[in-house]
Amino acid sequence: MRAAVARDDRLEVDDVPEPAPGAGHVLVRTLANGICGSDLHALTDLRHFAELTSRVGGLLAMEPGQDTVFGHEFCAEIVDFGPETQRTLAVGARICSMPIVFGPSGVEAIGYSPRFPGGLGEYMVLQEALLVPVAEGLETERATLTEPLAVGEHAVGLAEPGPDDVCLVVGCGPVGLAVIAALKARGHGPVLAADYSATRRGLAERFGADEVIDPGLHSPHDCWSSFGVTRNPMERSVTEMLGGPVRNAVIFEAVGVPGMLQALIDDAPARSRIVVVGVCMQTDHIEPFIAVTKELDLRFAFGYSPNEFARTLDRLADGTLKVDGLVTDVVGLESAADAFAALRSPEGNGKILVTP
Amino acid sequence: MRAAVARDDRLEVDDVPEPAPGAGHVLVRTLANGICGSDLHALTDLRHFAELTSRVGGLLAMEPGQDTVFGHEFCAEIVDFGPETQRTLAVGARICSMPIVFGPSGVEAIGYSPRFPGGLGEYMVLQEALLVPVAEGLETERATLTEPLAVGEHAVGLAEPGPDDVCLVVGCGPVGLAVIAALKARGHGPVLAADYSATRRGLAERFGADEVIDPGLHSPHDCWSSFGVTRNPMERSVTEMLGGPVRNAVIFEAVGVPGMLQALIDDAPARSRIVVVGVCMQTDHIEPFIAVTKELDLRFAFGYSPNEFARTLDRLADGTLKVDGLVTDVVGLESAADAFAALRSPEGNGKILVTP
Repeated sequence: MRAAVARDDRLEVDDVPEPAPGAGHVLVRTLANGICGSDLHALTDLRHFAELTSRVGGLLAMEPGQDTVFGHEFCAEIVDFGPETQRTLAVGARICSMPIVFGPSGVEAIGYSPRFPGGLGEYMVLQEALLVPVAEGLETERATLTEPLAVGEHAVGLAEPGPDDVCLVVGCGPVGLAVIAALKARGHGPVLAADYSATRRGLAERFGADEVIDPGLHSPHDCWSSFGVTRNPMERSVTEMLGGPVRNAVIFEAVGVPGMLQALIDDAPARSRIVVVGVCMQTDHIEPFIAVTKELDLRFAFGYSPNEFARTLDRLADGTLKVDGLVTDVVGLESAADAFAALRSPEGNGKILVTP
Repeated sequence: MRAAVARDDRLEVDDVPEPAPGAGHVLVRTLANGICGSDLHALTDLRHFAELTSRVGGLLAMEPGQDTVFGHEFCAEIVDFGPETQRTLAVGARICSMPIVFGPSGVEAIGYSPRFPGGLGEYMVLQEALLVPVAEGLETERATLTEPLAVGEHAVGLAEPGPDDVCLVVGCGPVGLAVIAALKARGHGPVLAADYSATRRGLAERFGADEVIDPGLHSPHDCWSSFGVTRNPMERSVTEMLGGPVRNAVIFEAVGVPGMLQALIDDAPARSRIVVVGVCMQTDHIEPFIAVTKELDLRFAFGYSPNEFARTLDRLADGTLKVDGLVTDVVGLESAADAFAALRSPEGNGKILVTP
C-alpha cells in the first residue's frame, strides 16, 4: 500500500506492506487522518521521543531505526475482518477508534509502532472491540476530529471545574481549541483564551471562548480580579477565613514549551488548578517554593478513556461540540511532508487532514 | 524581653522591645516554641527567603535587614488584652494560635515580621479571634505541636486519599511524621514511609506507619505491585479498560530538596497523586513529558485552615493523634542557636522545643 513513511527525520511516500489483521482485528481503509503535534515531535527526533516513552515503561513501543507510518487521528471504513471477530458492523461501515491495538507482543500504539501503521497509510489494522461507528449524518472530516477533541474532553474531566470557576486556556492550537470546545459543550463560562496568533484567537472565538487575549499586548493574568479571582495567596486565605466569596482559576496549559509552567506558577492566582495538556519534550525548570506558597495543583493530562472517546464522537454527531473552522486544509499523501512543514509555524494553520 | 534574635545568618540572645497589643490583639507569654524547617531555611538565607515570599505578593512580610524573632509553632498563656477585645478567655489561660495577625499595615506573619516577634521571645502579640484554648489535660509540650501537625492534617485533606489508595510518605522529619499521624488518625492504610535515618524510621513506626523503608537498601517504589498498585501507565489503562481493579498511589513529598520531584515523577506509579509538602527553596528540574504520560497530579500544600488547626489541637487532646517521641529535646533560649545547628543534621533529631 502507499503510505507517508517516517524515516529518521524525513517523511517519504513509498510502498509498504499492507498490514494483516490478526485475531480480534479488523482491516480498514483510511478515509482521513489528522496530523498531531506529537507527530511533529516524533518526526523531529524520533530517538528522543522513543527514549522518553521507553522510560515510561514501554508506553508506546517505538523502534527509531525502523520505518514508521504515523497517524492516530483517523476515520476509516471496514474492509475485512480477522479471525475471532464478532462482525457486528458491516464491511463498508465508517468507524473511528482509539489508536491502540492488542498485538502478539502486547498493547501497541497505532501510528507509532512499526508493526501497526497509522492513518498516513492506505490501510490499518484496528482492534474490533474498540471500534465506534460513525453516525450517517456526520461528515468524515468531522469524525476524524474525534481523537484530538477527546483529548480536550479528558482534560476538562480531569480539571473538574466547578460552576463558579473561571477557566483560562493558554495556547489555542488544536489541543487548546479542543479544551475550549469541551468546556463550552458542558456550559462552562467564563472561558478566557490566550494565543499570540490572530488566526488562533479567531478560532478560539468561533469555538466559544468568552474573551480572547493577545499575550503580546497584555498578560492574561491581568484580568483575574475583573472576574472575581484573587491572585494573592494571603488575601485569598483571609477572604476565605472571613467567609467571603472565593472563585478559583482553572488554567489549561496547551503550549508545551519549556518555561511555560514556571510562567504559570509565577502568574497564576493562588490555588489555581493548572491542567498540563501541552506536551513539553524538554527538561524544564520550576520553582517549587512559589508553587507551594500558592498551593497550586498541577494535573498532567494524557489521552482519554474509551467512554470519553465515544462521547466525543456522539457530541460531534449531535452538534454539541462546535468545531467549525478547525480543519484548515485537506491534502493528499503526496503533500503530507509539506503539511508537516507548514504546521511548524502556528500562524494560519489549525488542523490539517491527510486523505491517503 | 529576652529573645533569640535572627541577625543576618546568626541567632543571638538579646533584649528586644516587648510587643504591645493593638486593637483586637492579646499579649501572651510564650510557654514553648518548636523550631521549624522553614526557620532553618530563613536563617540560612533570609534575603533569598524574603525575595521568594515577596514574589508571592507579600505572603510573609519580611525585612531582611531588620532583627527578626522567629517562632510560629507555640503554646502560650494570656497576659493582657489590647483594646477592642472580647476577653472570653481569662488571663493565665493556655492557648495556641495560627501564627498570623492583622496589623496596621495588613496581615502579618508572626515569627517572620520584624513587627511581630514569634515564640523564640518571651512575649508575643496574637490575634484574639484566632486563639484556641488548650484543654486542661493536655501537656504544654504536646499542645506546642499543633502547628506542625496541622500541616500534616492539611496535606492529607488536600490529598483526598480514597479508601483503597496506598499512601507513601517520603521523608520522615517532622512534616512527614505529621502526615503519617494525620493519615493514621483518619484510619488510612497501608501507609508506607521512607527515610534514610534509622531514628526517623523508628519514629515513623511509632506514629503508625505500616511499613518503613530504608531507601539506601531498596527503592520504596519496588513494593507497589505487592500492594496491588500498577506502575506502568499502559498496563494500568488496559486493566481499567477491561474493568479490572485499579489502586492508586498517594505520595507525600516531605523532603524538599532539588531532584526529589523528578525522582518521584520517574518512579511513581501512573496516576499517582503527589502532594508536595516539603519546601524546596531552590529552582528544580522536571521532565514534563514523563509526568504527562503518567498523568501525575502534583498538589503543592501550604499551611492549613483555622478549622484544620483547631481540629488538630482537639485530636491531640483526645489522643487520636499519636505523637509520642516526636519531641526529642526541650532547651532554653540560650541553647536556641545550638538547637538550630543540631537540626541541620536529621539523624537523631525530631522536633526541638525552646522554652523562653
